[in-house]
Amino acid sequence: MTAPREQREFFAVKTVGEALSGFRPARRTGIETVVLDEALGRVPAEPVRAPHDLPGFARATVDGFAVRAADTYGVSDGQPGYLDLAGEAPMGRPPEAALRPGAAIAIATGAPLPPRADAVVKVEHTQATLPGLVEVVRPVTPGEGMVRADEDAVAGSDLARPGRPLRAAELGMLAASGLTRVRVRARPSVSIVSTGDELVPGDTPELAVGQVRDATAPALAALVREAGGEPGFAGIVPDDREALGNTLRRAHGDCDLLVVSAGSSVGARDVTAEAVAALGSPGIWCHGLALRPGKPTLLADCGGVPVIGLPGNPRSALVVFRLVGMPLVRLVGGCTEAPPSPTVRARLARDLPSVAGRLDVVQVTLDEAIATPLFGSSALLSVLAHADGCVIVPEAATGLPAGAEVEVELYR
Amino acid sequence: MTAPREQREFFAVKTVGEALSGFRPARRTGIETVVLDEALGRVPAEPVRAPHDLPGFARATVDGFAVRAADTYGVSDGQPGYLDLAGEAPMGRPPEAALRPGAAIAIATGAPLPPRADAVVKVEHTQATLPGLVEVVRPVTPGEGMVRADEDAVAGSDLARPGRPLRAAELGMLAASGLTRVRVRARPSVSIVSTGDELVPGDTPELAVGQVRDATAPALAALVREAGGEPGFAGIVPDDREALGNTLRRAHGDCDLLVVSAGSSVGARDVTAEAVAALGSPGIWCHGLALRPGKPTLLADCGGVPVIGLPGNPRSALVVFRLVGMPLVRLVGGCTEAPPSPTVRARLARDLPSVAGRLDVVQVTLDEAIATPLFGSSALLSVLAHADGCVIVPEAATGLPAGAEVEVELYR
Repeated sequence: MTAPREQREFFAVKTVGEALSGFRPARRTGIETVVLDEALGRVPAEPVRAPHDLPGFARATVDGFAVRAADTYGVSDGQPGYLDLAGEAPMGRPPEAALRPGAAIAIATGAPLPPRADAVVKVEHTQATLPGLVEVVRPVTPGEGMVRADEDAVAGSDLARPGRPLRAAELGMLAASGLTRVRVRARPSVSIVSTGDELVPGDTPELAVGQVRDATAPALAALVREAGGEPGFAGIVPDDREALGNTLRRAHGDCDLLVVSAGSSVGARDVTAEAVAALGSPGIWCHGLALRPGKPTLLADCGGVPVIGLPGNPRSALVVFRLVGMPLVRLVGGCTEAPPSPTVRARLARDLPSVAGRLDVVQVTLDEAIATPLFGSSALLSVLAHADGCVIVPEAATGLPAGAEVEVELYR
Repeated sequence: MTAPREQREFFAVKTVGEALSGFRPARRTGIETVVLDEALGRVPAEPVRAPHDLPGFARATVDGFAVRAADTYGVSDGQPGYLDLAGEAPMGRPPEAALRPGAAIAIATGAPLPPRADAVVKVEHTQATLPGLVEVVRPVTPGEGMVRADEDAVAGSDLARPGRPLRAAELGMLAASGLTRVRVRARPSVSIVSTGDELVPGDTPELAVGQVRDATAPALAALVREAGGEPGFAGIVPDDREALGNTLRRAHGDCDLLVVSAGSSVGARDVTAEAVAALGSPGIWCHGLALRPGKPTLLADCGGVPVIGLPGNPRSALVVFRLVGMPLVRLVGGCTEAPPSPTVRARLARDLPSVAGRLDVVQVTLDEAIATPLFGSSALLSVLAHADGCVIVPEAATGLPAGAEVEVELYR
C-alpha cells in the first residue's frame, strides 16, 4: 500500500475505443488442420476454395419432366403442347441418353438433367394424357425447374473466408465439395493468474473469515471459451512481489495471452504492474481505462505475449474482459470478424447518472422492453449474475434520462 | 413417385407457430454431474442454491479506514475529525480485534471489517496527520465503503435456475460458493439419417454425374451442437422402403431425437412418412408446415422419441431445423430459456413478395443497415452460406415493400 503515487500515475488513462483500436499485439496462433466435425466456430487460416463446380451437373429442382424450353413455348390450358415421353432420368446416376427435340423425360427432384434438356416442367403443369405422351399446359423458360452445374459454387470460388468463424452452412458447402479437413488457427491458449492474499481455490470446503474462493478465474475461463480460446489456470498468487514475478514468468512462457486478475488494493496493483513490466518489451501500453467499472486495467505486450491486468473486483474484471479481453483473444486467434452478439432495444426504467469522458457499463434486467439498471458495489458478482445484459453509456454522455431508448447487450 | 395423393394430403398443414407451441414431446434427457470447468452453456437440472452467505463476512470495497460511521458525523475539510489509528486489518485472515469507539483501523479493499466497524472511509477522504491519528474530512454512512456478509448471496438463495444455460457470471457465483460440480441435463443425443439415391458420403473423392456428397448432415450436426445437443450420423440410406425402415429403427432405439433428412422427391417423402409412422405411437403430428422454404416438414413423436423429417433440399432442411429443430433439441435437453439470439434492425433493399397464410424465411446480406434479399433455388446451399442472416415474413403479411424496417436474425 505504500508505492509512490507518481509511479501509479505514470501511464496515461486511455479510452476503451483507443484501447480497442490502438492496442493491437502482433501475436497470432499457429495453423492446425481439423476435421469438419470439429470445425464449427473455428477460424479458417486462409480462404477455402471450391475444388470443382457445385453441384457439378445440372439438376432438377422440381418433380416433373426434363424438356427443351423451346418445345413448350406458347402452350396453355387451352392449347396444351404434347411431348413424347422418352423414359425416366435415373437418380444418382448419369443420364442414359440425351433429350431428343419434341421429347420429355420424367425426372425427380435432384436427378441430373439429360444432355440437351434446359428446363424442367413441374408435374403440376402437366396432365395425364395418352400413354407415351406428356401434355404440357404451362411454358417454361430455359433454366426453370433446375440448377446449373456451377450454380451453387464455381470452381475456385471462396467457400469460407479467413478470419470468420465457420458456420453451419459453410461446413455444408465444404462437405459438398469433398473437403473433409480445414486449416484453422489454433485456439489461443490463455493463462489466468489470480492474485490476492485473501484468495483460496474454489474447492476449499470451509473458509476462514477473510478468505474468499477464486470466483473470477472460472468465470474468465468461460469468457475465454466464448471467444474461442483455451483457458488454463496458472494458480493463485499472494500479493507478494517475488511470488507474483515467478508465477507470471512461468505462465508467460507457456501461453498466447496472459490474464492477471490483480489484487484489489492499490498497492497490489502497483506490484502487478512492476511484475508485468519485467516480462519484456515493449511492455505496458496503458495502465488505466476511462471505464467504470474497470479503471485499473493494464494492457501490455511483453516479449510477444499480450498481457491484460484486470481489476481485483470480480465484477469489474469480467466487465473489462468482455469489453477488451475477448476481442484480444479473438485477435490472437486470427478472428477478424467476431460472431454477431445479441442486442435488444429497450427503454430505461430510471435515470442513469454518468460522468463525461468515461465509458460506463451498467448491468440491467429486462422486462418486456424496459431495462432496469442494477446498482451495487463492483465487488458484487451477483449483480452480473442477476443481469440480462448491460447498457453502455458512451464517454460523451453525461447520463441518460429515464425513458431513453438504449441498446442492451445481452449476456448469454 | 407413385404414392397415392390422398396419402400425402392426409395430415393437415400446420403453421410454424402451431408447431412450436403445439408439438411438445415429453422426452427429456437424464441428469448428469459435471465439473464447473465443463459447465459453460450446460442446463441446470434443478435450482442451484447458495450453501452459505456470500462473501460470508463484511468486506471493505475501498482502500481506507474501518470506522464506526457515527464517529465521522459532521466532519468536513474545515472541521476534520480525529480517530485513533488502531492498527491494520489483515488481508485474508480474521480481524485481530474489534474496533473501539473513536478509533480507526487501516484496511485494504477486500479485507474483512473488524467487529463493530460499520463503514470504511476512503483513503482519499483522510489526510496525513500526527502519528497514531487519522484525520477524516468526509463523513460516512453505515454500510459505505463495504459489502455486508450476505450482500452477494444469502444462504439458500438461487445462484442458477433450472432450464437456463449456465453463463460465465453464474459459474463465478458457484465457484465463490465452493460448488465444484453441478447437476445438469445430459446433452440430447441427436441421430441424423440422410436419405437419397444420389447421396454419397462427404469423403467420396470423385463423384459420378448424378451423385452429390451429403452436405446437409454435417451442417445439421453443427446446428445440433449450437442447440446444446450431441449429433451422431446414422448413415446415408437409399430411397428404399426397407433400407430406410431398418436404419430408422436402429437409429430410433439409440437417441433422444431423430432427424431424417428426407429424399427430395414427393415419392421419397411418402416413403419417409410411412417409415416414421412405423416407429411407434402416437406417431405423426404433422406432415407439412405453412413455411417457405420447408413445406414438406414432418413432426412425429414415436415411442417416446421426437422425430423431425426435413425437406430434401439442403437449404430448406437447414431453415426448418433452425426454426423448429433447434427449439426441439433445447426442449429435450431441458433448456426452457434459450440463449438470446443476435438480431439487428435493417431496411429492405427491395420488395419481398410473399403469400398470406405462409411464413417465409428469406436470406439476406447486410450492408450498414440495408438488408438485400438473396434469391435462388432452395436447392442452393450457397444462398445460406452467403447470407448474413434472414428475415421472417409472418403468415399475415402479403409481402413487404422496399424500405420496410425489418428485424434480421443474424447467422453465427
